Amino acid sequence: METRKVDAEVLFSDEKMQKVPLFGSEKYFCDLYCLRKGQAQRIHAHPESDKIYYVIRGSGRIHIAGEERDLGPGEAAVARPGEDHGVRNEADDDLVLLVFMTPRP
Amino acid sequence: METRKVDAEVLFSDEKMQKVPLFGSEKYFCDLYCLRKGQAQRIHAHPESDKIYYVIRGSGRIHIAGEERDLGPGEAAVARPGEDHGVRNEADDDLVLLVFMTPRP
Repeated sequence: METRKVDAEVLFSDEKMQKVPLFGSEKYFCDLYCLRKGQAQRIHAHPESDKIYYVIRGSGRIHIAGEERDLGPGEAAVARPGEDHGVRNEADDDLVLLVFMTPRP
Repeated sequence: METRKVDAEVLFSDEKMQKVPLFGSEKYFCDLYCLRKGQAQRIHAHPESDKIYYVIRGSGRIHIAGEERDLGPGEAAVARPGEDHGVRNEADDDLVLLVFMTPRP
């Protein structure tokens, strides 16, 4: 059985946000995003794909379609096709997100 | 911004497992599965789709392709296209799973 333990997969770098692939196929990916204080995923868009952010721990400043919100553990948001989106860690604690995107761009 | 708070969405029924849609399109769904002790999703398969189970709380007995494992919070598994899969709550505590599936069958 293909299983993953998030705690064992979390990986941070002082250089930049880390993406850790958990599961995927040619149709989607499911990754962990691991951000130290001050790190970010730049704002960008995918013309065809939905991307879901689910906060596992920490607080993420989520940007979607020009709006920003701070989401905490157990909160989730979706960026729809063509919507600008990104995430920053403006908090002191590390941020871990579960991210699901389909179709894979 | 389309956001969801898992704690506010969790819904149980004494009758059967509850599926709570969080996000979706014609290409995928992202649901919460909420299972009281003894409840289950019957074993089934989808010929084209991957399904990911991520345990938010409780302990889930995940069945994939003839194998069973108990997964706890922060653990995840994937059922690949054509693989029999299902989940049961054999523990005393309530079980909440985040479930992604794509393509939507």
